[in-house]
Amino acid sequence: MDARVNPKSGNAMARINSTRLWDSLMELARIGATPKGGVKRLALTELDRQGRDLVVGWLREAGCEIRIDAIGNVFGIRPGRRGNGFDADGNPASDPAARPVAVGSHVDTQPSGGKFDGNYGVLAGVEVLRALNDAGLQTERPVAVAIWTNEEGTRFTPVMMGSGVYCGAFGIEHCLTQHDRDGISVAQALAAIEYAGRDTPPRFAAYFEPHIEQGPVLEREGKTIGAVEGALGQRWFDVVVTGQDAHAGPTPIAMRRDALLSASRLIIEVRRIAAESPDYARGTVGQLFVHPNSRNVIPGRVEFSVDFRNAREETLLAMVAQLREAAQRVAQEDGVQVSVDEVVHFPPCAFEPDLVAGIEQDAAELGHSVMRLASGAGHDAVYVARTCPTAMIFVPCEGGISHNEIESATPQDLAAGCDVLLRSVLRAAG
Amino acid sequence: MDARVNPKSGNAMARINSTRLWDSLMELARIGATPKGGVKRLALTELDRQGRDLVVGWLREAGCEIRIDAIGNVFGIRPGRRGNGFDADGNPASDPAARPVAVGSHVDTQPSGGKFDGNYGVLAGVEVLRALNDAGLQTERPVAVAIWTNEEGTRFTPVMMGSGVYCGAFGIEHCLTQHDRDGISVAQALAAIEYAGRDTPPRFAAYFEPHIEQGPVLEREGKTIGAVEGALGQRWFDVVVTGQDAHAGPTPIAMRRDALLSASRLIIEVRRIAAESPDYARGTVGQLFVHPNSRNVIPGRVEFSVDFRNAREETLLAMVAQLREAAQRVAQEDGVQVSVDEVVHFPPCAFEPDLVAGIEQDAAELGHSVMRLASGAGHDAVYVARTCPTAMIFVPCEGGISHNEIESATPQDLAAGCDVLLRSVLRAAG
Repeated sequence: MDARVNPKSGNAMARINSTRLWDSLMELARIGATPKGGVKRLALTELDRQGRDLVVGWLREAGCEIRIDAIGNVFGIRPGRRGNGFDADGNPASDPAARPVAVGSHVDTQPSGGKFDGNYGVLAGVEVLRALNDAGLQTERPVAVAIWTNEEGTRFTPVMMGSGVYCGAFGIEHCLTQHDRDGISVAQALAAIEYAGRDTPPRFAAYFEPHIEQGPVLEREGKTIGAVEGALGQRWFDVVVTGQDAHAGPTPIAMRRDALLSASRLIIEVRRIAAESPDYARGTVGQLFVHPNSRNVIPGRVEFSVDFRNAREETLLAMVAQLREAAQRVAQEDGVQVSVDEVVHFPPCAFEPDLVAGIEQDAAELGHSVMRLASGAGHDAVYVARTCPTAMIFVPCEGGISHNEIESATPQDLAAGCDVLLRSVLRAAG
Repeated sequence: MDARVNPKSGNAMARINSTRLWDSLMELARIGATPKGGVKRLALTELDRQGRDLVVGWLREAGCEIRIDAIGNVFGIRPGRRGNGFDADGNPASDPAARPVAVGSHVDTQPSGGKFDGNYGVLAGVEVLRALNDAGLQTERPVAVAIWTNEEGTRFTPVMMGSGVYCGAFGIEHCLTQHDRDGISVAQALAAIEYAGRDTPPRFAAYFEPHIEQGPVLEREGKTIGAVEGALGQRWFDVVVTGQDAHAGPTPIAMRRDALLSASRLIIEVRRIAAESPDYARGTVGQLFVHPNSRNVIPGRVEFSVDFRNAREETLLAMVAQLREAAQRVAQEDGVQVSVDEVVHFPPCAFEPDLVAGIEQDAAELGHSVMRLASGAGHDAVYVARTCPTAMIFVPCEGGISHNEIESATPQDLAAGCDVLLRSVLRAAG
C-alpha cells in the first residue's frame, strides 16, 4: 500500500513504501530474535548495539547527520532549508522556526518482547525520511529520528531513561550510575557498546511517536488509527484491611470481622468508581495478599493494590476521594480498619490538541478509520511532551497483546500509521 | 463453688470441688508448660506419657480399673452396681443396661496449645468420679473416663485418631503405620511410651464431652453453659475463576475480564448465603491466590477456597446449590469461567436430643445461664456419637481464643460445666 501525500498545494507527492517499512521491521527483528517469534534485545547490550548500528546505518543512508548524547540517545537529523537544527556553535537553534520536527521511539525490548513495541516508531521515522528522499522533497525545518535509550527499564531502572534525561526528569549522573544485576553501570554499558556520546541533543519543534496500541481498543472498535489525546495520569495505592482472624467453624457469621470480605467490597467499589468516571478512567486491583491465607481461618488482614488512571488530574483526584470515602464506609460498616496510602503518582499528560486534530484529519482524508483514545501506559512521548508539542499515533496490535513474544501487527495497519505520520511531519516541517 | 446434686430423690448429695478441679488442671498444665503460659504436649511423646501417667494415677486413686486399647485410648472405669461394663470373658457387656456412662476428651495439645483444650474434658471426668466418691455414691451403671489418643493430629494424621479407631472410622493398622516427620510410626511411639494396650474397649451407654467453646458465642452472649446440639457438617470447595490478564493501563473497563473482580463478587455471595441460611450456617473464604498478582496487570486467574458448614445436611446442600448458581451467574455476567470443585465433606453430627435437653435443664436448675449452640469444629464426641447417645457441654473461653498459648477460661465457668456434667452423668448412670 502506498500513500500519496500532498499536504499543501504546490508540494511534490511523497509516498511511503509499506513493503520497505515491513522489511526493515523484520530485518531489525532478527537481532535478538527468539524461537517463539519475539525479540529479546535488552537496553545497552551487544544486541542493542547491533540494532542501533543497523538503524544508524539506515539513517546515514537517508542523508542524516548522527548525534549521540551522554545517555546514548541517538538523533538522526535530515537538514531542512533552515539548517540542521543547530547554530554555528553547535548549540540547539535559538530560532524556534529552525528546530527539527522529530519522530522517535526505542529499539530496546522486554526480555520476552515483540517485534513492534518501540521498533515501529523508530522505523516509521526512517520510512518517512526515505519517502521524502524518494520524492526529492526538502522541508523547511529539519526532520529528525530519535532512538531513546532504555525505554523498557528491565535491565536498568528507571524506565524511559533516555527521554527522561532529555526532558530533565532525571539527572544524567543518577542514570549513568545505575547498575544492572551483574553490577554493570549504565556508563560502563554505554561505553562498551560505543554509544556514550558527547553531543548536545537537538530541541524539537514538534515530536511524533507512532506505536502499536498495546491495548484492545482499536481492534475491538475496528479502527486503524488512534489519535492519542494524551497519556493517563496514575495514582497507585496500598490498601490494608485489618479485621480479626478466627476459626471458620466456631465463629458465627454475625460475629466476624472478615478482612477479605471487606476487601472484596472495596474491589467492587474500585471497579464501580472507574466505570462511572469519565476521561478514560481505569481502576485495577492487580495484587492481593491474604493473611493467614488458610482454608478454615477467617482472614484477619488483607493487603491489596489499587491502580487508578485518568486523563485529567481533577477526575483522578475525584476517583481517589471516592475510594477513601468507600474505605471509610466499609470500615465502619464491617468493623474493620482500612488504610489507604498513595505509593505512586504520575500526572496526566495531554498531547498537543492541534497535532491530535491533525492526525485525526489526516487519517480521515487518507481513508483510514480513526478514533481518539488515550495511552494507558507510559511512553517516551510523555517525557518529550514536556519540551515541545507532542502527539502519538496508535495502530492496532493483535488481541491488544504486547510485552509478549506473540505481539503482532499487520503490514497494512503499520503502513497506515506511517501514512498518517508522513502527513503530520510534513504539515509540521513545512 | 460447690454444687449439690440430687438428681433423684433418695440419692445422697454429690458435689464437685471447683478448687480441686482447677488445681488438677494446673498440675497437668505443668507437663509441657511453655514460657508464654501455654502447653506443648504432642501426642505420644514423652510429655504425653507423663500427662497420661498423671491422670491414670488419679483415676486409679478414684477407684478405677484401667483399660488401654490398641491405639492407646485409656479407659478408667469406676464400677457400678451392674459391674464394670464387661462380661466374664472380658468382652463388652452385651446387656445395654450394664454399659458405662462415659466422660472423655484428650490430653495431647497443639504445638502452641493452651491448658484447657481437651484437658478440661478429661479432668472434669476425674472430678465427677471424685465427687461420687466424696458422697459415697454407687451408681447403677459404671462410670468411665476416656482419654482419646491424638485428637489434635499435629504430629500424626489423621486428627481424632483414637476416637476414630474406636468408632470404626479408621482401621487400626492404617493408624499404627502413620509416621511423624522423623519417621517414627504410631506403633513405635505407643510402644515407647508404654501405651500400646491390648484391652478391648468398653461400649458406652452414653458419652459426655465437656470442652471450652473455642469460639466467641458464650462470651458474647453472656452465657456460662452451652448445650451443644451437634457438630456442623462441612463441605469445602476449590473455586477457580479464569478471566484474561491484561495491562491495567491500556485496557478500558468495559473490555476487561477481571478474575479478581468476579472472585470478589463470589466472596460476597458466600457471605450472603451463610448469613441468610439457618441451622448455624457458616461460610468462609479463607484462602485466595491471584495470578499474576502484579500491581498493573488485570488478574487473569484467581483461586480461592470456600468452607461451608451447617448443622443440617439438607441446608448445607442448599447452600452449595446457591454457590453453584452464583458461580454460573457471575461467570455469565462477567464473561469469565468459574469452576467449583468439592474437596472435603464431613456430614453433620446431631447429638442425642434427650441428653442435650437434660444439659439445658440441669444448667437452668443449677442457676447457670445456658444456651443451645453448635460445635463448629470437630471433637472426639463426633466420632463417639456413632456408637452411643452423645452430647457436649461447652464453657466460655476468653475472646473465643483456642489453639493458642493464651487460651484462657475461668475457674468458675469450668466448675459450672463440671456441675452440669455431674448431673448429666448421674441421670444417665442411675
